[in-house]
Amino acid sequence: MSQPLQKPARLKGFQDFLPDKMQVKQHMIATILDESRKAGFRPIDTPALEYTESLLGVGGETDKQVFRFLDNGGRDVALRFDLTVPFARFVTEHFGELTFPFKRVQVGPVWRAEKPQKGRYREFYQCDLDIIGGDPLLADLEILLCFQNILHRLNLGSFTMDVGHRGVLSALLQALLGPEVKRQEPQILILLDKLDKIGKAAVQESLAALGYDSTRTHPLLALLAPEDQEETDLDAVAELLQGNEVALAQLTQLQTLGRMIRPLLGAEHTGLFRIRLGIVRGLGYYTGVVFETTLAAHPEYGSICSGGRYDHLAERFSKQPLPGVGASIGVDRLLAALMEETSTETESPYAGFFVAVATEDAYPYGFQLLQTLRQKGAVAECSLKAGKIGAQFKWAHRMHFRYVLTVGTEEVTSKTLRLRDMQAGTEVELSLTHFWETLPTLE
Amino acid sequence: MSQPLQKPARLKGFQDFLPDKMQVKQHMIATILDESRKAGFRPIDTPALEYTESLLGVGGETDKQVFRFLDNGGRDVALRFDLTVPFARFVTEHFGELTFPFKRVQVGPVWRAEKPQKGRYREFYQCDLDIIGGDPLLADLEILLCFQNILHRLNLGSFTMDVGHRGVLSALLQALLGPEVKRQEPQILILLDKLDKIGKAAVQESLAALGYDSTRTHPLLALLAPEDQEETDLDAVAELLQGNEVALAQLTQLQTLGRMIRPLLGAEHTGLFRIRLGIVRGLGYYTGVVFETTLAAHPEYGSICSGGRYDHLAERFSKQPLPGVGASIGVDRLLAALMEETSTETESPYAGFFVAVATEDAYPYGFQLLQTLRQKGAVAECSLKAGKIGAQFKWAHRMHFRYVLTVGTEEVTSKTLRLRDMQAGTEVELSLTHFWETLPTLE
Repeated sequence: MSQPLQKPARLKGFQDFLPDKMQVKQHMIATILDESRKAGFRPIDTPALEYTESLLGVGGETDKQVFRFLDNGGRDVALRFDLTVPFARFVTEHFGELTFPFKRVQVGPVWRAEKPQKGRYREFYQCDLDIIGGDPLLADLEILLCFQNILHRLNLGSFTMDVGHRGVLSALLQALLGPEVKRQEPQILILLDKLDKIGKAAVQESLAALGYDSTRTHPLLALLAPEDQEETDLDAVAELLQGNEVALAQLTQLQTLGRMIRPLLGAEHTGLFRIRLGIVRGLGYYTGVVFETTLAAHPEYGSICSGGRYDHLAERFSKQPLPGVGASIGVDRLLAALMEETSTETESPYAGFFVAVATEDAYPYGFQLLQTLRQKGAVAECSLKAGKIGAQFKWAHRMHFRYVLTVGTEEVTSKTLRLRDMQAGTEVELSLTHFWETLPTLE
Repeated sequence: MSQPLQKPARLKGFQDFLPDKMQVKQHMIATILDESRKAGFRPIDTPALEYTESLLGVGGETDKQVFRFLDNGGRDVALRFDLTVPFARFVTEHFGELTFPFKRVQVGPVWRAEKPQKGRYREFYQCDLDIIGGDPLLADLEILLCFQNILHRLNLGSFTMDVGHRGVLSALLQALLGPEVKRQEPQILILLDKLDKIGKAAVQESLAALGYDSTRTHPLLALLAPEDQEETDLDAVAELLQGNEVALAQLTQLQTLGRMIRPLLGAEHTGLFRIRLGIVRGLGYYTGVVFETTLAAHPEYGSICSGGRYDHLAERFSKQPLPGVGASIGVDRLLAALMEETSTETESPYAGFFVAVATEDAYPYGFQLLQTLRQKGAVAECSLKAGKIGAQFKWAHRMHFRYVLTVGTEEVTSKTLRLRDMQAGTEVELSLTHFWETLPTLE
């Protein structure tokens, strides 16, 4: 009845997580959840599968990238491709059960059938924070601050959060390129969205092809994307927006946001806040503040945290306006960056006690030690393969245990143990009572 | 361009998690991971999607219950229906990267297209522990002990772990029903698997229909399923197995397991260990010890933690024998039980500080307070809707904040704040310096 062996194949673009990487990922997710909890964000979850019609039609690339199929009951279903669109369904469905302003945090996998490449997978974790309701300025401040704190605590080195405003950008396009820009705005925004990738010269060329010569596009690009750490010339922007009261108010709000958040980041904070009016973040639902974040040490990972303000999250489900602000952290992309950082430095979460069992009759005594150590919060293991004590010590060394407790017939009878400090290389014989007294000083 | 509104529909059998429930679930998963970490289990993860041929063909009900489809590249793929089958693929693929005995812990969602019913969903979380390699007795002991500790720490009240052995069961069937039982064994095992559900009388009737009269089946069922807390009569079993050395050795091992684990559970431990030779756990891959666990307060949830020993986890992928022992906790089923328990008692993880901002100019000062409180580890929020102080206090009360700090123009100037203890109903005015000194005494 033996069948030919299968090759253990994994789907392209899908990852396994081995313990070393998984430990870092779990620690990262726990940090994100803890930091967002301190700022009052409430955890929620939604299903991996939704009716396709609940997910699609938002536009953009995503429609082509979903894993979509008919289930056994003939329902047209799809795996979620982000945590925002299902959140719209969630908020509408549970509107009466939520307290507004509602602050959510959600961490989980999403799936996209896109071409796998370095750091890009077909299954990856996102972490989303959103605030539905509240005053725009205060909610924007709160969410940007929380993301700043999360990224700071993740210990990724310095990073820059570039913040723009879609309203200000539209007004600026009209002011500099003329009112006829309106019907070409989507094309122009797509071009501007690629500024970082293709550079100013290429964008300027494409704008020229649309009929905008360099006398207009040069000053535009200078304002939208200042060189390096240069401040955006907001006075020049305000000058250009004269007469457009709405845009001027949006600009003031953006300035106020910057003025409020900068002192909150403090001296040791690794995050930087910059106003960059060229930020677009796609043609989706954003209407106000938009932002993206890059790591100083890893610009190649692109934006690791981005989002913005939307006016109406759930317009397909409800006439109720649901203005909010939200963003995602690309957890697996960040993890890739973290794994490069923490190659040797990390402390093992398993560097506890190893119980070496010299004679088989000592196993019950050995397990009693393990059990008590674990109850006291320590990591404690023994060899699950009875065998020579030398082999057990070798294993303990290889697995980086800090202490080895040796027990055998003699120790069982005298209720003692031998305690070896693997770092110091010292060994002492202790009574059990004495060992439990000594324990708090050991870690 | 307004389209007709969609109903925010969720797929049948799929759950949303609102904050109250999600908090408990996250706490539960963190507890499981912490307790298994202390016993040296290493976290891993595998993709939600696999090639269908990697998942199917293990037999049983599951083949019909998978969510299976062709992806955009025409690959036949399926959502994992448990965490065991993908683990076989994982171990084979990463054999050279793992250290054996390998102890894994994995928590994540699985999907089954089965009929939804109370406590049974089409998407649910499992937590699996497995040990590949090691001496069977020691590895069985280690894993059962770790599950006992996890369930104890989850605070579910008392529970019973019923442990049997597939080898002993087969030998017992032959001894009591005669050697001809061999070719009917699968049918008989399926019947015995239903003992709990349909009762002894019904099983006895079905056995009679197969040709086994009550003179043989009555003593069998008495041995396999003793009433209530009665001990299994292992002397009688040993008597019946005389001459079958293999089965006698298996029986001794099971007895030793019981003798070792019972004293390890200690007096306050909420877990009970029972030998129950009628435990089957399906026709799948189990070959040695098998077990299941029921909550004393919630027998209606069925087994909340079950598994057993297998000889060859990955036989479809590799000729390498991979004997191991593993089991799953049904996280969402346990969560349902937990949610019934902790209706009012749980302490909110959000009962920290609320900063009431009396005048809008005090927001920067207020956010500075929030930021410092959060850096010190506290939960701290302010109102994201500027407005009357009364409304802010009402909100703080409703959200169960323990302390309210009021700040306005005056407090900004004098660098003070008013601290209100919402439980005691007292309010004091403090300088900032004094407040930071007082803080450690507040929580």
